[in-house]
Amino acid sequence: MPAQNQDHKQPMRIAIDAMGGDRGPQEVTRGVIDAARNSNSLFLIVGDPDVIRPEIERSSSPPRNIEIVPASQIIEMCDEPVAAFKKKPDASVVVGARLVKEHKADALVTIGNTGAAMAVSLLTWGRIKGIDRPAIATPLPALTGTVILLDAGATPDCDPNNLYEFALMGSVYAECFLGKKYPKVGIVSNGEEESKGNQLVKRTHALLKNSVASINPAPFEFTGNIEGKDIFRGTADVVVCDGFVGNVVLKTGEGVAEMILTLLKEELSSHAWMKPFILPLMPALRKLRSRIDYAECGGAPLLGVNGICIIGHGRSNAYAVTNACKAAERAAQQNIVNTIRQRICEMPTPPPE
Amino acid sequence: MPAQNQDHKQPMRIAIDAMGGDRGPQEVTRGVIDAARNSNSLFLIVGDPDVIRPEIERSSSPPRNIEIVPASQIIEMCDEPVAAFKKKPDASVVVGARLVKEHKADALVTIGNTGAAMAVSLLTWGRIKGIDRPAIATPLPALTGTVILLDAGATPDCDPNNLYEFALMGSVYAECFLGKKYPKVGIVSNGEEESKGNQLVKRTHALLKNSVASINPAPFEFTGNIEGKDIFRGTADVVVCDGFVGNVVLKTGEGVAEMILTLLKEELSSHAWMKPFILPLMPALRKLRSRIDYAECGGAPLLGVNGICIIGHGRSNAYAVTNACKAAERAAQQNIVNTIRQRICEMPTPPPE
Repeated sequence: MPAQNQDHKQPMRIAIDAMGGDRGPQEVTRGVIDAARNSNSLFLIVGDPDVIRPEIERSSSPPRNIEIVPASQIIEMCDEPVAAFKKKPDASVVVGARLVKEHKADALVTIGNTGAAMAVSLLTWGRIKGIDRPAIATPLPALTGTVILLDAGATPDCDPNNLYEFALMGSVYAECFLGKKYPKVGIVSNGEEESKGNQLVKRTHALLKNSVASINPAPFEFTGNIEGKDIFRGTADVVVCDGFVGNVVLKTGEGVAEMILTLLKEELSSHAWMKPFILPLMPALRKLRSRIDYAECGGAPLLGVNGICIIGHGRSNAYAVTNACKAAERAAQQNIVNTIRQRICEMPTPPPE
Repeated sequence: MPAQNQDHKQPMRIAIDAMGGDRGPQEVTRGVIDAARNSNSLFLIVGDPDVIRPEIERSSSPPRNIEIVPASQIIEMCDEPVAAFKKKPDASVVVGARLVKEHKADALVTIGNTGAAMAVSLLTWGRIKGIDRPAIATPLPALTGTVILLDAGATPDCDPNNLYEFALMGSVYAECFLGKKYPKVGIVSNGEEESKGNQLVKRTHALLKNSVASINPAPFEFTGNIEGKDIFRGTADVVVCDGFVGNVVLKTGEGVAEMILTLLKEELSSHAWMKPFILPLMPALRKLRSRIDYAECGGAPLLGVNGICIIGHGRSNAYAVTNACKAAERAAQQNIVNTIRQRICEMPTPPPE
C-alpha cells in the first residue's frame, strides 16, 4: 500500500548540494531559504560555508531551520561521474549522499552534474533489491496538469524488464507526487495500436499487459501505447520509455517551445504599432510561459536507488530550487523508497527473457 | 554529382492518389488544380472519375494539364498494408505506383495510409541497390528555415548501416529540396558529445565519422550528435535517427506546439477586456501558426525505393496537397533516385557488423 496522507506534514531533513548548478551557490541558498520559510523541515545546505553563510545572513530574518554542512570539493559539470566520485570524497554532492546513508538526512537535492548525481547515489546507497536499472522521473507540463515521464536519461539502452520496472516505480511516484491513487501508465510508442512500436515496446507492452491483468486489484491502470502527441494531452499520468527516447522527448519539447516563443516574439514585434496592443497582454503571455516552465515542476527524482535524490536542471533559479526542495520533502514524507519496495513484492516477477 | 539546376523547369508527369486522405477526393483535387495552374507539368489524378471530374469542372477555367486516371478501389486508413496491396490491385495508390513503374508518370503523391504507401512503393518498384531499408524524409520547421528529419517512421528498428544509408539519402534530399550543396548531417542523440548516445548512435557515429573522413571531397559535412533541442535551432540541415525515434520527435513536436497554442488561446481569452487588444494582432498570430504548420512543408518522400513517392499527412488540406505536388515535381526534375544511386557508389561501403 502507498504511504498514507497523514505523514504529509511530518518534518524531514533535506540535504541540498549547494555547489552544483550554473547560477552558483548563492542562487541555490536563496531557493533553500524560501523553502525553509514555509516548512517545518530541517534544511542542510552542503558546500563552502564562506559563500553560503553570508548569503543566509544577508536575508531578512533568516529561518532557523537551516544548517550549513561544510564540503571542500565540487564536482564540476565536465567531470567524469565515477572518477569524480572516487577522487573527490569531500565534494558537496558526495557529502550530501553520505548524510542520507548515515540517516542524518532523509533526502538529497542537487542541480549539479546529472551523471555525477546518479553515480554518487548508486555507489553510496546501492540499488533497491529487484530493480535492475535506475530511472529519472521527470514531471512534464500537459494540458491536463502534470505528467511523469521516465526514464529521462539514466539508462539509455533498456530491455523490456527495465521498462516494466520503470512502470512500477513511475506509478508509485505519480501516487506520491500527483496524488493519483490509481494512475494511468502508458508506453511511448510510434502509434496507439498494440501492433505498433519497435521490438522493445512490443515486448514491454505484452509484459505489462499480462502482469497488470494477473493481479487484483492492480496498483495502476495500463493504458497501452501513447504517441508523442498524446503525452502533452495528459492521456496518461505516467509515460514510460528508455532513457534515450526520454531525453529526446524532453529536449524536443524544450526545442519546440523555445522555437514557438521566439517566433511569437518575432511576429509580435515585427511592427512598432503593435506595442500598445501587446503591453496589456504581457501578464497573460508571462502566465503562458510559466505554465510550460521547467522551474514550476521542481526537479526529478532518481528512482530505483536506496535513497531519495531529486535532480534539478543545471540552470535552475532559486524558485526552481525551492520547488525541488518541496518535491524532496514530499518524497521523504511519503517514504517513496519503501513504497517502491512494496510495489515490487506485490507485482509478479516477469519471466526471464 | 547531384542533378543540375537547369532541369528545374522541365515538365514532369505527377500521379496523385486522390482517394486517400481524411478530407476526401474533392479536397485533393482542389489542391492538384492549384498546383497545375502554376506549372507546365502534367497531373494525373487517380481515383473515382465520378467524384473527381465534377470537382474539376466546378473550378473556374480548369487547367488543361490535368488528366483523370480511373481506379475503382481504395486502400482505407485501417487496411493492413501488404494484404491490401494484394487484394486491391485497382486501388488508387496501386494504380498510381504502376503508372510510375510503366514510365507513364515520374512521381507519385499520396496522403492516404502511410504504411500502404510504403508497401505499395516497395513491392511495385523495389529497393535501390545498396539500400537495405527505406526511410521517410520529413521536412520540419526550424528557426533557421527547414530541416530534413529521417527516418520519420518507415523503419522503427535500425542498425548502424541503416542510419548510415539514411544519412546518404538525406544529404541528397537536402541538396534537392533545400538547395544546400554541402549539407550538414547530424545524428539525433541524448547529448552532443561523441561519448553520448545509445549503442546504435555510438556505432553509427563512428561509421559516419570514418566514412566521411575517408573521401575527398565529402558530399556532406558530418556534424556529429544533435540534441532534440538543437533540431529546431537548425544546427544541422539533415538529422538522422531510427523510425521509432523519428516518429517520437515529430509527434512530440506536434504535441508541444498544440499545447502551447491551446494555452496561448486560453490565456488570451481569459478576460473579455483583452479582445480589442488581440484583434489587431491576429494576422501576426496566424503568421506564427503558418510558420510551424505541417502544410507549408509539403509532404515527405519515401527514400530508398526505385521511384518517387511523396507522402502527405492524412489530414492534408488542398494547400498541403499543392505543396506536396510541388515537392514531387522538384524531386522528379532533380532525378533524386538516380542521385541517390550515384551517392551510394561514391561513398565507401561500411564494413559488415
